[in-house]
Amino acid sequence: MATGEFDLIAKLAPFLSGGGDGVLVGHGDDAAVVSVGDRAVCLCVDVVVEDVHFRRDLSALDDVGWKAVAANVSDIAAMGATPSVAVVGLCRPASLDDAGVERLYAGMAQACERWGLRLVGGDTVAAEALALSVTVMGDVDPDRVVRRSGARPGDRLLLVGTLGAGAAALAQVRARLEPDPRHLAAHRRPVALLAAGRVLGEGGATALIDVSDGLGADLGHVCAASAVQARVDWTALPIAEGVLAAAEQLGVDPVSLVCGGGEDYALLAAAPPGIAEELARAAGAAEGVPAAVVGEVLPEEPDGGAPQVTLRMPDGSTRDLTALGYDHFRGAEGP
Amino acid sequence: MATGEFDLIAKLAPFLSGGGDGVLVGHGDDAAVVSVGDRAVCLCVDVVVEDVHFRRDLSALDDVGWKAVAANVSDIAAMGATPSVAVVGLCRPASLDDAGVERLYAGMAQACERWGLRLVGGDTVAAEALALSVTVMGDVDPDRVVRRSGARPGDRLLLVGTLGAGAAALAQVRARLEPDPRHLAAHRRPVALLAAGRVLGEGGATALIDVSDGLGADLGHVCAASAVQARVDWTALPIAEGVLAAAEQLGVDPVSLVCGGGEDYALLAAAPPGIAEELARAAGAAEGVPAAVVGEVLPEEPDGGAPQVTLRMPDGSTRDLTALGYDHFRGAEGP
Repeated sequence: MATGEFDLIAKLAPFLSGGGDGVLVGHGDDAAVVSVGDRAVCLCVDVVVEDVHFRRDLSALDDVGWKAVAANVSDIAAMGATPSVAVVGLCRPASLDDAGVERLYAGMAQACERWGLRLVGGDTVAAEALALSVTVMGDVDPDRVVRRSGARPGDRLLLVGTLGAGAAALAQVRARLEPDPRHLAAHRRPVALLAAGRVLGEGGATALIDVSDGLGADLGHVCAASAVQARVDWTALPIAEGVLAAAEQLGVDPVSLVCGGGEDYALLAAAPPGIAEELARAAGAAEGVPAAVVGEVLPEEPDGGAPQVTLRMPDGSTRDLTALGYDHFRGAEGP
Repeated sequence: MATGEFDLIAKLAPFLSGGGDGVLVGHGDDAAVVSVGDRAVCLCVDVVVEDVHFRRDLSALDDVGWKAVAANVSDIAAMGATPSVAVVGLCRPASLDDAGVERLYAGMAQACERWGLRLVGGDTVAAEALALSVTVMGDVDPDRVVRRSGARPGDRLLLVGTLGAGAAALAQVRARLEPDPRHLAAHRRPVALLAAGRVLGEGGATALIDVSDGLGADLGHVCAASAVQARVDWTALPIAEGVLAAAEQLGVDPVSLVCGGGEDYALLAAAPPGIAEELARAAGAAEGVPAAVVGEVLPEEPDGGAPQVTLRMPDGSTRDLTALGYDHFRGAEGP
């Protein structure tokens, strides 16, 4: 998260709806939720910019289209919702020929087919740099919306999916090393855990977020919204295969790579202790991905002295996860 | 419209939903329409890019925010719908400081307040160039959606609002002349004719579009979607005050400025002859803007020899309006 981002978000809050009068969830969650008759829809937007979020030497244009849709589907999944349609705003530079636009659209269409939504419109404009802004709408039962703000002390923390693959790929590319093909695939074609989101929402998760800025940052968002603190166990985390080996090869801190890297598109949930284990198992099984109970929600320290998110290491020492920023091409994000 | 745009749209069609299975209106209209329970929502997106759609020496950042929302509200109005919420994707260059982001948001919030919608979320990312992608959702009665494709031979054409002001401002700026302040205001803070759209939709308009690419291009869209041709009378057109004087000062063809300039945000409708005059009067009165019956819908010529959109001049001569491209900062648009 960029320095000063919280200041800016606070300054922009007066211009944004926090809820009320048909807005069930306003700004500040993975997606907004708006009532429509006796139903509700989710709405979220994600922008990807060339050389900030992707590089054409690492990702084909259909990968870029796929990823822009997948990132939004992941946000929709993190509300316990189901995506229905998408619209796309495309900033088209002279370097993007018609065949390139087609490949972008082909990738978006592949992701839409994968997750059952449809691309219903867009606006393409001339620009200096390639940027793709995808908005996805989803259906959600208004009584089953899962927000970031519902985590309660005593809840367990569940993680569905694995951490570190995308970050490892980028770190290896930057170090001019050959990235692990599995990690590069995770960077190019991330998988949104839509079925897991539904299982978590219907199964009684109290809070839900997708891990796109890194576990430390995103668990921090849940803690801030829920007014709680949290502790995570390093040994419990489902780390993507090869990530620890990559950290060693690179000589970088494995915790930073796993918890601060971002672009994981895992789902992080809170749930009461009585159902947490079974819920993690069911959510992982729905996607065929690892899932585990990884920590616990703690009461907020009234004096604010303790770190909001603590990582407990095998030797009993602890680290402050809040301090880990994400580390990928992205330079700023919000509100 | 950029050369080859129709080719590209045809190539992208396989990736886009044309309708069916809950999509009441797919790509190719002012907005998509999707059923939600027994209601329906509209969805549209508009991207504005610095030095393509606006220049910071002509528009303040709050003007840019206003315009990005207004352009979408105009699209929603052109479906006979009512906007409810907006989300924004912001490409933020280093040249845009926090105060600049605040001004952009303030302008979006002013437009949202004006037309009764709320800004519920967004994504801000680092980028080389300033671009703003606004998506607006609207409510619409599924039985009252007005499409581009419903114009029938014999219908009259109605125009609500005035033509030429935005184009005149840009032409004068380009010629290094002082623009008419009324025209500059129309460029900076266009007004979406939301109330007129509702009057036209509820009053029996058979087709509706907002004039954002110029009357020639947008009437061409209606004719293509409705498989009809059209004739417009020059003397009937509601031209913004001062535009003909500006054309004379500039030494440019007034027809190009009025019918090919774009950025008018007027509404163009078709309606049966028995109700057209009264509908134009009511729609204009709803906004306090000029409105008139300006022409007629004609059967499609089977051999395709005649121009699709003809402008009849006072001396009885005719001009082919289809041939007029729009002419502003914008370089390409679609699909």
